[in-house]
Amino acid sequence: MKLLRYGPKGAEKPGLLDAEGRIRDLSGVVADITPDLLSAEGLTRLAAVDTGSLPIVEGEQRYGVPVNGSRKFIAIGLNFADHAAESNLPIPAEPVVFMKAISCLNGPNDDVVIPRGSEKTDWEVELGIVIGKAASYVTKEEALDHVAGYVLINDVSERAFQIERGPTWDKGKGCDTFGPVGPWLVTTDEVGDVQNLDMWLDVNGQRVQTGNTKTMIFTVAEIVSYLSEFMTLEPGDLITTGTPPGVGLGQKPEPWYLKAGDTVRLGIEKLGEQGQTFVAWSR
Amino acid sequence: MKLLRYGPKGAEKPGLLDAEGRIRDLSGVVADITPDLLSAEGLTRLAAVDTGSLPIVEGEQRYGVPVNGSRKFIAIGLNFADHAAESNLPIPAEPVVFMKAISCLNGPNDDVVIPRGSEKTDWEVELGIVIGKAASYVTKEEALDHVAGYVLINDVSERAFQIERGPTWDKGKGCDTFGPVGPWLVTTDEVGDVQNLDMWLDVNGQRVQTGNTKTMIFTVAEIVSYLSEFMTLEPGDLITTGTPPGVGLGQKPEPWYLKAGDTVRLGIEKLGEQGQTFVAWSR
Repeated sequence: MKLLRYGPKGAEKPGLLDAEGRIRDLSGVVADITPDLLSAEGLTRLAAVDTGSLPIVEGEQRYGVPVNGSRKFIAIGLNFADHAAESNLPIPAEPVVFMKAISCLNGPNDDVVIPRGSEKTDWEVELGIVIGKAASYVTKEEALDHVAGYVLINDVSERAFQIERGPTWDKGKGCDTFGPVGPWLVTTDEVGDVQNLDMWLDVNGQRVQTGNTKTMIFTVAEIVSYLSEFMTLEPGDLITTGTPPGVGLGQKPEPWYLKAGDTVRLGIEKLGEQGQTFVAWSR
Repeated sequence: MKLLRYGPKGAEKPGLLDAEGRIRDLSGVVADITPDLLSAEGLTRLAAVDTGSLPIVEGEQRYGVPVNGSRKFIAIGLNFADHAAESNLPIPAEPVVFMKAISCLNGPNDDVVIPRGSEKTDWEVELGIVIGKAASYVTKEEALDHVAGYVLINDVSERAFQIERGPTWDKGKGCDTFGPVGPWLVTTDEVGDVQNLDMWLDVNGQRVQTGNTKTMIFTVAEIVSYLSEFMTLEPGDLITTGTPPGVGLGQKPEPWYLKAGDTVRLGIEKLGEQGQTFVAWSR
């Protein structure tokens, strides 16, 4: 299933994408796509709905974040060896963990605001995990049973805030609108092997990032297991798993950062595409 | 006002502490203490309630976290010069920011679980800020208008997870139960000068931390203003503002960490006291 939320910001309705790529309205079945729906039982119940009986939603629609009510937005850093190299940082011996402020969540195609005073706003195409069942001290073997599905995420980052105003990274990762998620939550059964998905990102139509989840240093199962040693992962929690090389920070001969008017478009195989226009901050 | 939530975990009722130190039941007035009540208007409405007309809650009660529905739990590190020194870290030029996982929130007197494999679980008495009105790019002068009140927090920390498994700190700060908050949310009008409050913490009855909020490097107003440059602070957001010296990490001749059965008791002038028993992890 491809679960989604569509409509104006703050008034999104639940929906799913049918086999023909049309939005079907789920609001007669559930009030919203919420964490409690993401258990195996909840997803089985949704999958049993006759898609053909659901109203087709006509016309161009805005997408919201595909789950409403996520409590944590956890991120893994430097999870591709060649991205660690371009960042001039060693390949980590264990996952690097930081957090994006939950208030940074943004519709997948909504504008992203360059913060006031920012000169180093950057892009990162990433595979996002959505937790379906609470996970505490789960093994690698058990981990994928706790995953409801996957989402496309742009882990937008302000490098000066992140690196030059450290020592932690959180200042540069959770600015408002820095978390475009979606368009869809694709359930695990539709994704198949999550460690073999092509990823790409274009800035102003130029390809800058190309990768595949098979070169992640730590796999989805390893990440879920690892994080569950430090905190309970709850249904709806989002985990963004790191970016392949080609971010602005790593461009040669010199870094390339986003300016107002720039557009970013990105995608991951089976998870859809998203695109943002970057705009200047204004009150 | 001293707002609180009392009763069994997950089924807390709203209340307030009256002038005689008794809990008064607020559940006839509001369903819960939630972020939307924390605006100036919301608090004025609550303050207008005749306390004497509210039912007295008899008997010993468990306290929950005094606000239900906080979305962010932000933390400031090394905000006391002498604590930075005991941590062998320089006095920061600007606030050090990290995040505690929201899932670590814990009632003020509930047990704290020492994570599996932990050998360096530590204590930190801290002043917590509760945001009342959304704050984005607010000045120091405006900042306190966005604060609803203050809470006592034990910023429980696992030093090996935090420091030895870095580079960020979040692994050692957000473990389940690592965020005891309460007993009360004390509104700003009752606190008066927040930069002159005594703080203390005892381990097994022995005083280990003594401090006063007047020696914070960055004041509450500066912290709120500063953070609001990196993200919108929302009603209900919690900000814990750093600890004075005397944590386990800084004990001489060698660090002193918590073991199962140890008890911690802490307090801040005007904000009440809390106490936890530390227990071993078990599934």
